[in-house]
Amino acid sequence: MQHHDRIRAVEWSDEGLKLLDQRLLPRLEQWVLLKDALGVAQAIRDMVVRGAQAIGVTAAYGAVLAARDRYAESPEHWRNAIEEDFRILAESRPTAINLFWALERMKARLAGIEGDPVVALLDEAKRIHAEDVAANYRMGELGAELIEGPCAVLNHCNTGSLATGGFGTALGVIRAAYGAGRINHVFADETRPWLPGARLTAWELVEDNIPVTLIAEGAAATLMRQGRVKWVIVGSDRIAANGDVANKIGTYSLAVAARHHGVKFMVVAPTSTVDMTIATGADIPIEERAEEEVLTLAGTRIAPDAAHAWNPSFDVTPAELIDAIVTEKGVVEAPTLEKMKAMMAG
Amino acid sequence: MQHHDRIRAVEWSDEGLKLLDQRLLPRLEQWVLLKDALGVAQAIRDMVVRGAQAIGVTAAYGAVLAARDRYAESPEHWRNAIEEDFRILAESRPTAINLFWALERMKARLAGIEGDPVVALLDEAKRIHAEDVAANYRMGELGAELIEGPCAVLNHCNTGSLATGGFGTALGVIRAAYGAGRINHVFADETRPWLPGARLTAWELVEDNIPVTLIAEGAAATLMRQGRVKWVIVGSDRIAANGDVANKIGTYSLAVAARHHGVKFMVVAPTSTVDMTIATGADIPIEERAEEEVLTLAGTRIAPDAAHAWNPSFDVTPAELIDAIVTEKGVVEAPTLEKMKAMMAG
Repeated sequence: MQHHDRIRAVEWSDEGLKLLDQRLLPRLEQWVLLKDALGVAQAIRDMVVRGAQAIGVTAAYGAVLAARDRYAESPEHWRNAIEEDFRILAESRPTAINLFWALERMKARLAGIEGDPVVALLDEAKRIHAEDVAANYRMGELGAELIEGPCAVLNHCNTGSLATGGFGTALGVIRAAYGAGRINHVFADETRPWLPGARLTAWELVEDNIPVTLIAEGAAATLMRQGRVKWVIVGSDRIAANGDVANKIGTYSLAVAARHHGVKFMVVAPTSTVDMTIATGADIPIEERAEEEVLTLAGTRIAPDAAHAWNPSFDVTPAELIDAIVTEKGVVEAPTLEKMKAMMAG
Repeated sequence: MQHHDRIRAVEWSDEGLKLLDQRLLPRLEQWVLLKDALGVAQAIRDMVVRGAQAIGVTAAYGAVLAARDRYAESPEHWRNAIEEDFRILAESRPTAINLFWALERMKARLAGIEGDPVVALLDEAKRIHAEDVAANYRMGELGAELIEGPCAVLNHCNTGSLATGGFGTALGVIRAAYGAGRINHVFADETRPWLPGARLTAWELVEDNIPVTLIAEGAAATLMRQGRVKWVIVGSDRIAANGDVANKIGTYSLAVAARHHGVKFMVVAPTSTVDMTIATGADIPIEERAEEEVLTLAGTRIAPDAAHAWNPSFDVTPAELIDAIVTEKGVVEAPTLEKMKAMMAG
């Protein structure tokens, strides 16, 4: 059994929602048990769990916890009371659309419920979770087919089992393509400031016995110039209607360098990440996180005390720098509004 | 008195050569006292001192220590014995040409010496040191004139008082241009893996009261896309005859992004950094340092135990991506072999 079948970032149990604490990986595998929606929102904000699709799944289970508490408090007024929980969950992070998408699905399911809502909502959350995993396997197949290999690829951030319901988006494509002999080596950039590449992607790949070499982000352009990678493969936190892609800070820099060197650029994300209500990437809200993420490392301040930092957590890669967007509904090459519409309708 | 007049990375004293330990900054200002050439070579290798021009100055003083020991051991045979010291100093790091350039100057001075060589060699080392500072002030003027401001700029790595004999190359231009009202804000990227941007550049700028904002390298392209910087200003470890520039890893990525966004790209380095014997950047030896620099942070391993890393310490930016090379002999815009030759002859 491969690691990615074993590892889940998010697990429902009778006691509550269990999250594998991603702040501590790979040093410690420690689970956090959450029993109410407030705790779930806090865990998302603090990045106990991260990754657009994993956040969506987590929020869905958070809504189950909210319903359990609110119904127990008042079988009459729980529908009003739970609105506040939805609001708090929705405010936990601003960029990844999957959070809002999952909460909307949970709200829609609420509408038809009579009596105790927990069984129905838990069913919906588990569906969201299972559909995400299924979408990832499907994207793995579709994305792998695009890669003429065997070749090496570059991955940014973490987009694996830990970032999703399981298997992964970009890392799912990498897993599938490695299994199919189309990829033979993965370069993972460490992805400052939070280091998900160094801490999480390297861990997942080492566990799956897929050859991985870490690099500082500054080395990525040289890697491309030396012809050592054929594709950059990344995930996404939100895709606008025209195919502009918001993803972890540093993605755009890689897209610019990839185009400069004729390296292909693939974005892998389920349709739950596509926001057709937003025309272009310019309208995607970009979270800015605390400057301490840049000013400190492993708890130690690295910068002088008086220094300040700018810490946008995401950037936007314009559609014209993207060779392919892979969703579970299909592949959109050289994305445009028309092609995105056709894919979403498909 | 501004900080850059006070701080020196390298100081000669009667007891020996003092280096400000750059591995500990900005947390600790601690000096290392070196009494022989072997210790100097080790300090360069271990990056107690770093920065092409600071390494050159350090190696020159290292040759003085070697001469003192070898002459004391044997006033007859010291000229043979010192060859081994020159070899060890030269092997301390491979990329920065200033190291070899300074040692060649020291060797040339040796030739005419009779009797005790220490006074003459110390005079030569001090000349190399003083000339470097003078070149930096001159480059500061020349580079500042290129900047139509007031504007913000982006700096990579550390190229200040700590990287040179004093004042700095790229940071010298930034200091001069800030003083002249042409620059009003500096973005410093942290420069993984060794973090000289976060640790050293931010420190020098804070001490000089020049407004500085730290960013992760992944945010640089977004900064450019938002039109927030007009110039990227960097130093160099070696410049080939055609104007290709070796500099700290990550420089090339910034040059690609700068060209993509119409941001100008300036390289600031004295003629001691220009290697007219090397035709293009492809022939510059690029040091690869220990993978632990990428796999660990502040002494803590961040990557999984089985992970490996590729850690090139420098990259090469081709001349066609460079808008101006500034030396103490003048400005070479859109560098070519012919223009570089003319500048060097000037």
